[in-house]
Amino acid sequence: MPEVVFSVDQARSMREQATPGHNRWHPDIPAAATVRPGAEFRVECREWTDGQIGNNDSANDVRDVDLSPCHMLSGPIAVEGAEPGDLLVVDILDIGPVPQETGPRPGQGWGYTGIFAKQNGGGFLTDHYPDAYKAIWDFHGQQATSRHIPGVRFTGITHPGLFGTAPSPELLARWNAREQALIDTDPTRVPPLALPPLPEGVLAGNLAGDALAKVGAQGARTVPPRENGGNHDIKNFTRGARVFYPVHVAGGLLSGGDLHFSQGDGEITFCGAIEMGGFIDFHVDIIKGGMEKYGVKNNPIFMPGNVEPRYSEFVSFIGISVDHETDTNLYNDATVAYRNACLNAIEYLKTFGYSGEQAYLLLGAAPIEGRVSGVVDIPNACCSLYLPTEIFDFDIRPTADGPRRADRGRCAVSS
Amino acid sequence: MPEVVFSVDQARSMREQATPGHNRWHPDIPAAATVRPGAEFRVECREWTDGQIGNNDSANDVRDVDLSPCHMLSGPIAVEGAEPGDLLVVDILDIGPVPQETGPRPGQGWGYTGIFAKQNGGGFLTDHYPDAYKAIWDFHGQQATSRHIPGVRFTGITHPGLFGTAPSPELLARWNAREQALIDTDPTRVPPLALPPLPEGVLAGNLAGDALAKVGAQGARTVPPRENGGNHDIKNFTRGARVFYPVHVAGGLLSGGDLHFSQGDGEITFCGAIEMGGFIDFHVDIIKGGMEKYGVKNNPIFMPGNVEPRYSEFVSFIGISVDHETDTNLYNDATVAYRNACLNAIEYLKTFGYSGEQAYLLLGAAPIEGRVSGVVDIPNACCSLYLPTEIFDFDIRPTADGPRRADRGRCAVSS
Amino acid sequence: MPEVVFSVDQARSMREQATPGHNRWHPDIPAAATVRPGAEFRVECREWTDGQIGNNDSANDVRDVDLSPCHMLSGPIAVEGAEPGDLLVVDILDIGPVPQETGPRPGQGWGYTGIFAKQNGGGFLTDHYPDAYKAIWDFHGQQATSRHIPGVRFTGITHPGLFGTAPSPELLARWNAREQALIDTDPTRVPPLALPPLPEGVLAGNLAGDALAKVGAQGARTVPPRENGGNHDIKNFTRGARVFYPVHVAGGLLSGGDLHFSQGDGEITFCGAIEMGGFIDFHVDIIKGGMEKYGVKNNPIFMPGNVEPRYSEFVSFIGISVDHETDTNLYNDATVAYRNACLNAIEYLKTFGYSGEQAYLLLGAAPIEGRVSGVVDIPNACCSLYLPTEIFDFDIRPTADGPRRADRGRCAVSS
Amino acid sequence: MPEVVFSVDQARSMREQATPGHNRWHPDIPAAATVRPGAEFRVECREWTDGQIGNNDSANDVRDVDLSPCHMLSGPIAVEGAEPGDLLVVDILDIGPVPQETGPRPGQGWGYTGIFAKQNGGGFLTDHYPDAYKAIWDFHGQQATSRHIPGVRFTGITHPGLFGTAPSPELLARWNAREQALIDTDPTRVPPLALPPLPEGVLAGNLAGDALAKVGAQGARTVPPRENGGNHDIKNFTRGARVFYPVHVAGGLLSGGDLHFSQGDGEITFCGAIEMGGFIDFHVDIIKGGMEKYGVKNNPIFMPGNVEPRYSEFVSFIGISVDHETDTNLYNDATVAYRNACLNAIEYLKTFGYSGEQAYLLLGAAPIEGRVSGVVDIPNACCSLYLPTEIFDFDIRPTADGPRRADRGRCAVSS
Repeated sequence: MPEVVFSVDQARSMREQATPGHNRWHPDIPAAATVRPGAEFRVECREWTDGQIGNNDSANDVRDVDLSPCHMLSGPIAVEGAEPGDLLVVDILDIGPVPQETGPRPGQGWGYTGIFAKQNGGGFLTDHYPDAYKAIWDFHGQQATSRHIPGVRFTGITHPGLFGTAPSPELLARWNAREQALIDTDPTRVPPLALPPLPEGVLAGNLAGDALAKVGAQGARTVPPRENGGNHDIKNFTRGARVFYPVHVAGGLLSGGDLHFSQGDGEITFCGAIEMGGFIDFHVDIIKGGMEKYGVKNNPIFMPGNVEPRYSEFVSFIGISVDHETDTNLYNDATVAYRNACLNAIEYLKTFGYSGEQAYLLLGAAPIEGRVSGVVDIPNACCSLYLPTEIFDFDIRPTADGPRRADRGRCAVSS
Repeated sequence: MPEVVFSVDQARSMREQATPGHNRWHPDIPAAATVRPGAEFRVECREWTDGQIGNNDSANDVRDVDLSPCHMLSGPIAVEGAEPGDLLVVDILDIGPVPQETGPRPGQGWGYTGIFAKQNGGGFLTDHYPDAYKAIWDFHGQQATSRHIPGVRFTGITHPGLFGTAPSPELLARWNAREQALIDTDPTRVPPLALPPLPEGVLAGNLAGDALAKVGAQGARTVPPRENGGNHDIKNFTRGARVFYPVHVAGGLLSGGDLHFSQGDGEITFCGAIEMGGFIDFHVDIIKGGMEKYGVKNNPIFMPGNVEPRYSEFVSFIGISVDHETDTNLYNDATVAYRNACLNAIEYLKTFGYSGEQAYLLLGAAPIEGRVSGVVDIPNACCSLYLPTEIFDFDIRPTADGPRRADRGRCAVSS
Repeated sequence: MPEVVFSVDQARSMREQATPGHNRWHPDIPAAATVRPGAEFRVECREWTDGQIGNNDSANDVRDVDLSPCHMLSGPIAVEGAEPGDLLVVDILDIGPVPQETGPRPGQGWGYTGIFAKQNGGGFLTDHYPDAYKAIWDFHGQQATSRHIPGVRFTGITHPGLFGTAPSPELLARWNAREQALIDTDPTRVPPLALPPLPEGVLAGNLAGDALAKVGAQGARTVPPRENGGNHDIKNFTRGARVFYPVHVAGGLLSGGDLHFSQGDGEITFCGAIEMGGFIDFHVDIIKGGMEKYGVKNNPIFMPGNVEPRYSEFVSFIGISVDHETDTNLYNDATVAYRNACLNAIEYLKTFGYSGEQAYLLLGAAPIEGRVSGVVDIPNACCSLYLPTEIFDFDIRPTADGPRRADRGRCAVSS
Repeated sequence: MPEVVFSVDQARSMREQATPGHNRWHPDIPAAATVRPGAEFRVECREWTDGQIGNNDSANDVRDVDLSPCHMLSGPIAVEGAEPGDLLVVDILDIGPVPQETGPRPGQGWGYTGIFAKQNGGGFLTDHYPDAYKAIWDFHGQQATSRHIPGVRFTGITHPGLFGTAPSPELLARWNAREQALIDTDPTRVPPLALPPLPEGVLAGNLAGDALAKVGAQGARTVPPRENGGNHDIKNFTRGARVFYPVHVAGGLLSGGDLHFSQGDGEITFCGAIEMGGFIDFHVDIIKGGMEKYGVKNNPIFMPGNVEPRYSEFVSFIGISVDHETDTNLYNDATVAYRNACLNAIEYLKTFGYSGEQAYLLLGAAPIEGRVSGVVDIPNACCSLYLPTEIFDFDIRPTADGPRRADRGRCAVSS
């Protein structure tokens, strides 16, 4: 086992750890640890809400979650010699839930998937599913099952939802400016278009007083992916993956968390992955001047892991950029196209007896693939969603006999 | 070899065939052949422009292509007993370029990829690459190489870009209404937001006179995918795939064409696939009442083929919904995110010596995967693009040594 | 389509072709065609028995087959500049049954799998299945089904059973000596231990008279694989594969045939593949002095194709080197271990309603994998056999409910 | 984490554990734990030699290893309700090296591969490599590297080499009889043909005195696989695999160990896997009467795991059943064929600068596939060996330029 350079006691909140992590992106947050290029090390992580969600049959905790302290990240880890313009080479050697433990915190033998209420951030289908729902998943080695979505068992493509390097002050300022400009186009929208800096709930390692207040006032929220990496929610950042992060400040300052036992492409329910705390083992190295060498101006590059579960048979769904309820045509809108593919998949699964909410939760958590299929056939973008047939313990392929409808239980709902 | 129910003489245009095909969607176009459920049969196809592009080193033919007769489709094929509300089960048994022939038409041993000029439809990156370019690909069994993009060889995921059933009059009317409404929001845009019915160049089998004029006046253009299937450009409709098309008129009336020797997800250059004429072998069957049985309201369902080339190593690129040139933030826009992933990939490939146009053509034609990675992490949608490393005859992985830059020739340009 | 350098009229026997092929290995057989390094070309092939087997429901033709003219090979193809010590680089660009034809010869839309009678060569399980049986397979694009083995459909891993280069006189003499020495250990065995040269039925291109008699007297039979390649029956020599053959004579003299629409590892029924005539497209090149450069002393090297059908779920069977009927222990005998794995698989399939003969034929033809699992755990070698579950249209996985037994018809038997 | 039903303190030998395991197969060995059908539980394991091998650069410990106490197994685990004739359904939920520890025992962050000396058991190529050699592998998450075989990094297909159920007295007697009969054919052979019961070094849980002496006198050695499962060394018993073991005694009595971080098909160096201690998490269930239901007379059935590393490119080697050094032809001998494929692979790797011993060690440990390719093409069986190209950090494909020879260090040798 590699050395633990950032440790977490899962019985305590991130604020109460010996070395707390942070929940904003800001260059002033001091390194919690320093490693050398070539080092292998372990980082322990809290679940992204820092323990607000319980292993029970009510979705009230998802409905009422306080987003101000989210995501709770571990780090930053400084890498000696990393300088702006370099690429930080990060290998994911291993990752998993909290080792050797069962208990009440996500990652201690279980995780959860939540549909957020429209009033509290919403999800990808929030206009169709505006209320809060939840499914608890039990871990069986690398496999997961849910009492809330029976008939399904799959191997997790375990990955961190969120890792990234610290922004430079200039980059941070650009983020804040462009995101505020977006918010200003519809400042009262529910859910909001973007999340501006928020002093409430800020955590920045051991910073306190004015230094902490500065991070609260300026620090970028952790929800979106940006030029530093961030909340990619790319399920293929799994064991064996290698990520090349742009370096914007001395030392790179790698931070992250939001570990997912499994997730479908798009993470469509907002916290649609199977959320958990746990650990991640890294190897790091540096490509000096790598950003210019490889033309990396904006986003990280990565090589996906090669131990993803193999599936060979899928039922696949298509969506196009049309609002079918109102017969309104959007222009080449892949977001709408993928949303329709998701809705089509949900309608299909309902014919087997699942509720819409169960199907929605399943598509967030299971290893579905979301593809950008056509983006030039105007006016209709076309996206597709690949659902592996093997994850079901009944046959979900279309046949002349019609679907095998059954009582498939219910997910956790809010009261 | 199954019976040929729709044959094409590649030396003649589609208009000159004994039984011509069609280039609009309209329920009045009469069936060119009728088959029974359970039948296996072959359909021969012209390349989508009906032979306007040549095997040469100039992109002038791409620049000047006449889009009014496109796409030239084979069919319709009526299936006995198919009624509105059924699902037409279509197995792709085999597909390929024009068998046993080499010659001057696309599909006779070669195909092409084109970047369309902004003045003539454009492509996914038309603001960055507004001019016409072309690459010719030579077929070597199931593999392709290009004199215009040296250093690359890959196995095609051969598929039809476009197949679908005929719309009912009501469905057709809805299409025309919603697409015109979109056009009306910016009627002089270049390229246009959508393509309305166009009498010029219309072909509707053997229809003539008023019947043909009606199709010309009402018939939907074939560019977008819609509720009947249509121009999905889903590369996984390959050998062994099974597609379940909604039936909207008696007999179903299956038509298609636009065969692709290979294509990357998104078909980003507009005719970004390796375009060709050829053949496709089908098996058809019917699921009576399948639309209601399986909750299919809008789009086809499919099961992808299981003989796609296997790759296990990729260099992958990420894009987010930000206009990096102007630092403008879009809201959860997967189209912009995928465009940025494409642009990031192109910048990367340029560091190895390819021109931007070569890289753009390559991403359209090679078996890249485009993934919808995150669509809930507001405000930034996140898409990713997976480029298989094995298709290159040099090492494209990032290393500390930097990229191996070389003279990599040039693609066909317009004069 | 590449140039056809060896053509076959499937309505005639190999002897009656304009340029006949051959059915023995001998350096004197003259080249039927000559190509240059870098050439792409097509070779057409007869089915291995030269048309002795019919598309019917009797196995009498399999029982009575005349093996003296087998295998009927196409070639030799000389490659300019190839010299002893070189490696001949052979790419399999494409392969398939007889194109564009249906008819009475294997490869014209159908193929067959045969269990040979013990009196006529036998097969891998000849002590358990001593009589002749047959299954006819119908081709549906790249998939096959059999009226003799219902409930199964699979995509072929199409490949040539047999290709190789000509032996030098010295190498040929060594083969004949060592094989005769083996025969001499039990000269009256049924089936024989090996097949010596046989003048009867010999064909050697256009050779006649004394030259032909010399080939008949000395020429090696084509059944086994040897240092020149030969009858490998390696199913992974499929589309996209590259084989590096040792060159033993000037020009290399590449010959082959015995095309298989599909085959399981081991080809256990002797003609256990789905046998057919057809075509194969090659690209050839030379690595000068490649045998020494790469330490190739005995056998070809190859890189398997990358378009094999993907399967992700298997029921697998194990065999060890014990004769369970007599409780006799063999020493580390992988042949016996694999035979037991086959027998175990057959007993399993019988519980679903197949006859033993049907199961045996299926294991010969379907894309099963045979693995050498353990060869050091004395005294018991261990082999395993992987049967893909997706090729069945019913569930073959073991469950608490027991197997779904049904009437599964019968294969063709001999009278 | 599931409950640990068999625990091991890696600082102590198996004999010194609170509940010791055992190293012979015998029905009298009492259950160390009892679980119910449906239970999930963890079993901790010692490395197979019980700690005789060190993390150093000498192979003397491999040369001098005492085989009398091997393999040290954990168990037996009784499953309530299991009766003779049932199938014990065993899911491998997870498996790995010793968690959270680094240290001097195999499995504590490292493992080893050994070539055994011919005087002490030998290996698959013992006539060619009669001396002892060793390679130490360092674990990096799921990947391994070796200072003794530089240039190679691969992801482990981690699996238990050995698990099985207890034999009935009758089955045990049959084993002893048939193996002694084999030994009697050449009782002084070095290495021996099989290993008879051996009182020396016997361990049987807490048994002592006469009960222990009886196990020593009758108990079957653990080296070979037999009707109870046993030392299969099937690398695909990995995460997600399900094994169906025949039950021969009440409770089934599942035991095992010999964990492998990785192994190539055949485990050719005898302890050719990367040997380690660690843990394995199981789920168990029962199919009542499953042996008869599914025709299981001899060996377990299994479904392999679906999270094996994916590779898509291989250099493959062929062997046939000929002794090339003496030009002696064996009859359809797959063991000799696979040995030749291994030898051919070693000669190939030597041209890149590896020593024969390094190559031999590598083929034992890396995820190579060994296939039974042809077993009917008399007289020559044909086996093939697939070596993934991606595990090397240099290009091992054959090219016209020849191999890139380099200094590749040396493995641990004996003095």
